[in-house]
Amino acid sequence: MEFEKITPGPLLADIHSPDDLKKLDPEQLVEVCDELRDFIIDTVSIHGGHFGASLGVVEMTVALHYVYNTPKDLLLWDVGHQAYGHKILTGRRDIFHTNRKYGGLSGFPKRSESEYDTFGVGHSSTSISAALGMAVARDLDQSDKKVTAVIGDGAMTAGLAFEAMNNAGAMNSDVLIILNDNCMSIDPNVGALKEYLTEITTSKTFNKLRDEIYDMLGHFKSAGEKMRKVASRLEKAVTTAITPGGLFQALGFKYYGPVDGHNVDTMRRYLEDLRDIPGPKLLHAVTVKGKGFAPAEREQTKWHAQSSPFDKITGKSLDPDTKPKPPKYQHVFGEAIVELADKDEDIVGITPAMPSGSSLWPLMNKYPERAFDVGIAEQHSITFAAGLAAEGKKAFAAIYSTFLQRAYDQVIHDVAIQKLPVIFCIDRAGLVGADGPTHHGLYDISYLRNVPNMIVSSPLNEQELRDMMYTASKYEEAAWAIRYPRGRATGMNYRSEFRPMEIGKGECLREGNNIAILSFGPFGNYVTEAADDLAEIGIKVGHFNMRFAKPLDTELIDKVCHTYEHIITIEDGTRLGGFGSAVAEYLADKPHHIPVTIMGVPDRIVEHGTQEELHREVGLDPEGIRTKVREVLKNYSLEA
Amino acid sequence: MEFEKITPGPLLADIHSPDDLKKLDPEQLVEVCDELRDFIIDTVSIHGGHFGASLGVVEMTVALHYVYNTPKDLLLWDVGHQAYGHKILTGRRDIFHTNRKYGGLSGFPKRSESEYDTFGVGHSSTSISAALGMAVARDLDQSDKKVTAVIGDGAMTAGLAFEAMNNAGAMNSDVLIILNDNCMSIDPNVGALKEYLTEITTSKTFNKLRDEIYDMLGHFKSAGEKMRKVASRLEKAVTTAITPGGLFQALGFKYYGPVDGHNVDTMRRYLEDLRDIPGPKLLHAVTVKGKGFAPAEREQTKWHAQSSPFDKITGKSLDPDTKPKPPKYQHVFGEAIVELADKDEDIVGITPAMPSGSSLWPLMNKYPERAFDVGIAEQHSITFAAGLAAEGKKAFAAIYSTFLQRAYDQVIHDVAIQKLPVIFCIDRAGLVGADGPTHHGLYDISYLRNVPNMIVSSPLNEQELRDMMYTASKYEEAAWAIRYPRGRATGMNYRSEFRPMEIGKGECLREGNNIAILSFGPFGNYVTEAADDLAEIGIKVGHFNMRFAKPLDTELIDKVCHTYEHIITIEDGTRLGGFGSAVAEYLADKPHHIPVTIMGVPDRIVEHGTQEELHREVGLDPEGIRTKVREVLKNYSLEA
Repeated sequence: MEFEKITPGPLLADIHSPDDLKKLDPEQLVEVCDELRDFIIDTVSIHGGHFGASLGVVEMTVALHYVYNTPKDLLLWDVGHQAYGHKILTGRRDIFHTNRKYGGLSGFPKRSESEYDTFGVGHSSTSISAALGMAVARDLDQSDKKVTAVIGDGAMTAGLAFEAMNNAGAMNSDVLIILNDNCMSIDPNVGALKEYLTEITTSKTFNKLRDEIYDMLGHFKSAGEKMRKVASRLEKAVTTAITPGGLFQALGFKYYGPVDGHNVDTMRRYLEDLRDIPGPKLLHAVTVKGKGFAPAEREQTKWHAQSSPFDKITGKSLDPDTKPKPPKYQHVFGEAIVELADKDEDIVGITPAMPSGSSLWPLMNKYPERAFDVGIAEQHSITFAAGLAAEGKKAFAAIYSTFLQRAYDQVIHDVAIQKLPVIFCIDRAGLVGADGPTHHGLYDISYLRNVPNMIVSSPLNEQELRDMMYTASKYEEAAWAIRYPRGRATGMNYRSEFRPMEIGKGECLREGNNIAILSFGPFGNYVTEAADDLAEIGIKVGHFNMRFAKPLDTELIDKVCHTYEHIITIEDGTRLGGFGSAVAEYLADKPHHIPVTIMGVPDRIVEHGTQEELHREVGLDPEGIRTKVREVLKNYSLEA
Repeated sequence: MEFEKITPGPLLADIHSPDDLKKLDPEQLVEVCDELRDFIIDTVSIHGGHFGASLGVVEMTVALHYVYNTPKDLLLWDVGHQAYGHKILTGRRDIFHTNRKYGGLSGFPKRSESEYDTFGVGHSSTSISAALGMAVARDLDQSDKKVTAVIGDGAMTAGLAFEAMNNAGAMNSDVLIILNDNCMSIDPNVGALKEYLTEITTSKTFNKLRDEIYDMLGHFKSAGEKMRKVASRLEKAVTTAITPGGLFQALGFKYYGPVDGHNVDTMRRYLEDLRDIPGPKLLHAVTVKGKGFAPAEREQTKWHAQSSPFDKITGKSLDPDTKPKPPKYQHVFGEAIVELADKDEDIVGITPAMPSGSSLWPLMNKYPERAFDVGIAEQHSITFAAGLAAEGKKAFAAIYSTFLQRAYDQVIHDVAIQKLPVIFCIDRAGLVGADGPTHHGLYDISYLRNVPNMIVSSPLNEQELRDMMYTASKYEEAAWAIRYPRGRATGMNYRSEFRPMEIGKGECLREGNNIAILSFGPFGNYVTEAADDLAEIGIKVGHFNMRFAKPLDTELIDKVCHTYEHIITIEDGTRLGGFGSAVAEYLADKPHHIPVTIMGVPDRIVEHGTQEELHREVGLDPEGIRTKVREVLKNYSLEA
């Protein structure tokens, strides 16, 4: 693939590392910011990528690298979407057009990519914990390096961030948290904390009130002894009351702000001052997501990330491919849950901050009182769903596979142990593409299959996804996980009536000789493609769409063992402990055992790229399946 | 087993359900509390159990059931240790002596046990989320039931509780949170939140100051127009400042308190008032853990739970068994980490609120600056450890198996993906005994084995635990999990020099015929016992101590396959996806495949009892192993 390189502005062209940035006069930083912003817009308009977050922190990024002595001083970017400017300033400008592409730069900070990337981040809200760990290590080493984490207001609602603040505030280690308050995560964020921050930043009378009160107190102090004493106490109370950020102060942080995060000079001066103030402190900077790109400022959710080229002035898509495409799995989910909710008023939907990513928004639009965006709060989302289920609601939790990792204990402790019939609609299951290792949903089959009272299923296509959701909505005996991948479904005509699905039952899609391929989920479509190709050269494989990793269709497997000589399993997840492992376990001590070859994602970190590129890399595409079939035929001396 | 029943006091004897309690006059509640407290002390002094927490909420429990219309009104007990009084008042008084015993009452609230137990709880900090879910379900059903959660101050530091508060504060659903502030979780709790609460509850000048200020403000209001305006604004600011609980108000909760949680009349009146105030609200009740039992009030950590009988006045142990016992695994850990830290100053230890439970306290005593209790904050504990490791520290995270479930995403995202060499010392792995399903550590082998860059090991005995810790401390290529069970080790003489251990290598403990037993972890000692017994009747099994579930000793397994006819694997964890599964996966398509019978905990919820009782129930004891061996010999027509 050819990558088009972007020409940087004159100042940016000379910045090969933060050292070059430091040679500039403070007055030149505004110009650097403009050039950096243009460079990001130019690149993303051609190559795609996460967008809004990085534009919102351009001035902050320039100020941080100008003031701090990176990489000796440690800088952490929460979520990591924000780090484009950071990457461009730290020696990666000339390869930035490879961002998020196969073999290119990661879309997130990554330790192995640069010494400036101190901590890998893809999921939100990790930065304060990691920064505190680094600050404590620094203290033990008696070093004087500074540690700074930049975290968005959306990420602050996650429990992990709170746990870290609570600990940092008590430990008194020197660490600076910059709260990048753009009043947004991906979807408009929710929760009391947001309202609290809004109150701080919109209170125009704040400073005026403060001044008036101090005037009054001065007046008191000149009065008698008793009055002076009261006034002195009052002053302390009032200072707390009228300094915004009391919540952070309650957690042991010194609070500074709110400041304009788009004034690079203000940011620089604040950082210079804060550099010399010891202990845990929080700088509250107010920014605009997508700053400097009008369409993104207007529609922040839409412009969170862009995968195809667009006009950098109007924002209009330049994607030449306008032919109709199959629906995404997430949209099939979004449509189906509304149809189900139409007929069953006990159905409710829950998402942790992903109403658009998970397509819960159609339900939110039609039944706002039955659809809940709980913010970036995965643990809470599941226990909240369990609470709803305990009181008779049919709770659909729409969540990405990797984010459900955050709620693993809640799945076990609050749902499964109590046999509550929560339905997990697990999006982004499998290799997700450009977001890379932090977002690949590779572990859910194995980390759910081992939990009692849990059904683990994956549809072959749109219709099966709908039927699984329908069947799950009628099932009250246990929890039910339905996993489906990022991206588009098959394009079949699927809007038929819901059909009940037999739990734990697979189906034979094609009979063959010797080798039976057992597929779990949409990879079955790759198998069909591969089997068609193989049939053309006279190799006939059997193909079974298993649908359930748990309960396993052991009757069907027994039948396969009697008819075939070899089983190949395939799944869009790690090959350790997943669907193939379940088949191997089941057969391990059976007298009718035949060899089982497990195809799945290998036990290593798979980097980013398109889904197709990654499927090819790990041998989980039609070509990989054909190769594996021929390999098995040869190694086991089977007839085709 | 004979259970000794306790005779309740005269009032308590007539309380068979909260309806009976409601028949009493308010003045009689003090007496009920006394009788309830005596009943708990009498029972626990004979039968053991969690102790301090329930004594601390006696008055609260009586007041709650007196005021609310349970079970229609919903009552949630966070952690659940607190619920003894609740159980006794809700129809379980006469079987309370079976508490935590095999076949008896659960030590925690449990939905299947009573309609008064609205939500099962074992792990902390779930109650606000679950209560909010129930409150929302109530709103959807247009019911008028009340929802109340009681949560300890220690549990409030967990991110889950914060996520739930943040969401509840914004949703404005009617829910009451009672913050049971005893300034303790199991170990003295830590963090800024605790300091904040302490400040509220210890500020003697609080009310006085408030009065003085209001006096002054009144004075102002009688002055001119401008002064009046300022005074009015000031009043609002000051009200926030001098009303304690601003942190909770910032999160959208109405705050009430602090109140004396041991004054049943106060509690009753507060609850009656709060019942009619809509929206999210928090009542801050100050209590003493272990209230009414002097030794427990003095030493709260020691008296968190008691497993053996004690004198109910002096607290002196009545355990007749005073012969020396083998050390607990946790103590072997606690001793070893200090020895390792003596020699390597980069070694640090982290625990989420379990310095005594995990035995990190010896390190905390000797090297306080290198041992970190981060509070009930499992997610943070692991990302914090990752931050330490990123800066070159050798971080030992001491954590229970079930609590590590809370940090699963942090294990994957912050440790494994970055290949950071964090060492997980996983205590309470396997069936834990009386704490039951919420605390059984059954899933860690499978949920860790599927993660790249992760070693999964378990020692056979004390010596191997030490050697694994030592070897892990020298290993920098990946993360390393060492799992060991609750309870006592073998009693071997183990305090020898640390020896390096070969990674991924097992050992042959005994050669035999036909059947080879591959054990993972301390269950190997059961195998030895069973194999000895079998040898006496002429059945010779081979026995291999595998030590590693990942990487697997495939060389040794290959050898076994060439020498034996059948493999039996055994592990103290679920039989799905764990060590046995790894062996089955490895052999699935091997030409030298022999049948593998996987022994592990079955895929269902295993209830509470002693570890021995539970091992027997699931067939994972010497008897179970002998039975399985004979079964295999018979079913596969093997020679003994």
